[in-house]
Amino acid sequence: MIEKIMKNVNEKNPLIHFLTNYVTVNDCANITLATGASPIMSDDINEVEDMVSMANALVLNIGTLNKRTIESMLKAAKKANELQIPVIFDPVGVGASNLRNEITKKILKEIKIDLLTGNLSEIKIIMGMEGNTKGVDATDTIDDSNLLDIIKNAKKLSKKLGCIVAISGEIDIVTNDKLAYIIRNGHSIMPKVTGTGCMLTSIMASYLAANKDKKIESVATAAILMGISGEKAYKKIRDENRGTSTFRNYLIDNISLLTFKELEEDMKIESI
Amino acid sequence: MIEKIMKNVNEKNPLIHFLTNYVTVNDCANITLATGASPIMSDDINEVEDMVSMANALVLNIGTLNKRTIESMLKAAKKANELQIPVIFDPVGVGASNLRNEITKKILKEIKIDLLTGNLSEIKIIMGMEGNTKGVDATDTIDDSNLLDIIKNAKKLSKKLGCIVAISGEIDIVTNDKLAYIIRNGHSIMPKVTGTGCMLTSIMASYLAANKDKKIESVATAAILMGISGEKAYKKIRDENRGTSTFRNYLIDNISLLTFKELEEDMKIESI
Amino acid sequence: MIEKIMKNVNEKNPLIHFLTNYVTVNDCANITLATGASPIMSDDINEVEDMVSMANALVLNIGTLNKRTIESMLKAAKKANELQIPVIFDPVGVGASNLRNEITKKILKEIKIDLLTGNLSEIKIIMGMEGNTKGVDATDTIDDSNLLDIIKNAKKLSKKLGCIVAISGEIDIVTNDKLAYIIRNGHSIMPKVTGTGCMLTSIMASYLAANKDKKIESVATAAILMGISGEKAYKKIRDENRGTSTFRNYLIDNISLLTFKELEEDMKIESI
Repeated sequence: MIEKIMKNVNEKNPLIHFLTNYVTVNDCANITLATGASPIMSDDINEVEDMVSMANALVLNIGTLNKRTIESMLKAAKKANELQIPVIFDPVGVGASNLRNEITKKILKEIKIDLLTGNLSEIKIIMGMEGNTKGVDATDTIDDSNLLDIIKNAKKLSKKLGCIVAISGEIDIVTNDKLAYIIRNGHSIMPKVTGTGCMLTSIMASYLAANKDKKIESVATAAILMGISGEKAYKKIRDENRGTSTFRNYLIDNISLLTFKELEEDMKIESI
Repeated sequence: MIEKIMKNVNEKNPLIHFLTNYVTVNDCANITLATGASPIMSDDINEVEDMVSMANALVLNIGTLNKRTIESMLKAAKKANELQIPVIFDPVGVGASNLRNEITKKILKEIKIDLLTGNLSEIKIIMGMEGNTKGVDATDTIDDSNLLDIIKNAKKLSKKLGCIVAISGEIDIVTNDKLAYIIRNGHSIMPKVTGTGCMLTSIMASYLAANKDKKIESVATAAILMGISGEKAYKKIRDENRGTSTFRNYLIDNISLLTFKELEEDMKIESI
Repeated sequence: MIEKIMKNVNEKNPLIHFLTNYVTVNDCANITLATGASPIMSDDINEVEDMVSMANALVLNIGTLNKRTIESMLKAAKKANELQIPVIFDPVGVGASNLRNEITKKILKEIKIDLLTGNLSEIKIIMGMEGNTKGVDATDTIDDSNLLDIIKNAKKLSKKLGCIVAISGEIDIVTNDKLAYIIRNGHSIMPKVTGTGCMLTSIMASYLAANKDKKIESVATAAILMGISGEKAYKKIRDENRGTSTFRNYLIDNISLLTFKELEEDMKIESI
């Protein structure tokens, strides 16, 4: 199935419309191209409906939100909902400001999301908004001690919002209301590069857009691909004695290079 | 002549004022520096006139246009026209939204452009606006079957707009109303990196700004430089088994490294 | 002392809030991570107070200022002053437009700055605003012929503004009203990469935020680190025959890799 999921991205070459932050936007565009999909970035309220109408998925990333782009996000997303184009929401930094909390609530209330994706801190804030934090401890790290509790709560959140929930971290979780995938690929150097979360979201969007009948599997595959790319990039910079900037290049390189066989060999995935 | 054109960029170190998109802006700045020119990015309506007045060329790129920056583009370009500073227009994504079509029409009507540069899809949309699409088929790829028709229409467009027209693709075309250069350098991996079109426009702006008495030749030289940089970057990543992010680095590296001799050896240019 | 200063950044992992330009923002984020600190970019007026309240330092960089972000900068900086969070001001391009001159004056008047950092052209404009240019000649290059005059004027400026003044160039100067450090590390290729000035400011912010009791020493250490990273990156691209894009990667790599021992061995610093 993973082979077919990867192949579909290259064959269908889905167009992904991004309303995203100006910090990591170039990396999001390049990693989207590396998956075999095509990105389009556009945020003026007078054209986002035209743009999203051509697209196969819409990504909302609030990393550097402002009043102008919030309005554009809502308009684009409503059009996407109308046209049944999948919407991926990455609530970057939710919890860090009232503004981010308010726009996150508004998006979750007014927009039908297909995939909510973030790190544990962000998803926990949203669980709190939705009243589902029971059993989730105060730490923001996923490990085997809290994994089952997090999954239980993520499934509840998924059910409540009617969307896939993906939580990235040392262990990645991809879940709907019934089935959860646990992915143990990746490397601890990844957060030392800005935008690895945004890049993962971009890959998930590309994979989901090309595999609408295999939504949760395609999102899980994206997490495996990102994780293994990170592992291999780390090995290479360690061998060459390079640092975080070269790591970033090798990470994106690997997204464009990795084959199904390499994924199959190194993937560490289980379901629950 | 190419040797002199390249030398002039390094010796004159022209200042290029960009009003451009936030996706590829960093690459545009770095590739401009790599040519030997200097970039300045600035888009507030209250300072664009000051900035363009110091510059040797102005680049308008509508990749992520918005209401605020459109106003700034028009103001900067009118000042550039007044001061006879060359204006380079890259109508990124024209045809994808009504907004882009409207602003493109407005720029072409109100501003005297020195160079219009885009891919075939974009230039065809503008040919349509200007009523000159006869003989241009529906595909967006330039090959030997449609090359002569495209050139004929591009020359008409050039005459109508009074500017050089550059069309980038597998074959690049640089034309005025009389003479067309056909450049067959480059590599098919280039569109897998975001902003190779914006970067090419940046090089053209640097070259044109330093060679105002050799406009069409300097734009053609820029296309050769970009094409050969891409070819050499591809060979290097293939040898090293690297992907698209390393390709981007080698591409920009090569702009800073390539000599006239290397261009002379590998260039595939003819005129018609 | 330098060893302790470097260690503090990694151990304290300060959070740096940036209101900065969209050209070099990704490099600023990545180089901040490379130092061991964490960046947060956010510029909406409705959340900058929330953001800066969590931060350990605030960076104001006016590289692509606009009306909206100017208001946000002032609001964030006033909150930072209220909470005694250090403010670092990089007046990019001051002198190039009236708008930049006016906002620079406004910031210097209304905000208590801890560190003013720029190249010689920028700092000279500010010396002029503050009436302190006596003895500073017209060139914008620091060399041994004008070094002592520049330091004298920078000390005066430091006294007047009540902040550390850092001037970057072939020779870097870091001074307060009494003591000046002169740092002769770095390489002439550095200005061929966009944003090396912004990146240096980012490192200074990280170092200062983690060493509030050693302000001037931490800023000087940041200049040494950047300079030696540039020297080593240049040697590596020369050996590998690479260009400016690879130089940028190696520069950021080195910020993440260099140890105190390597700094101690290569640093060229004196005080006056």
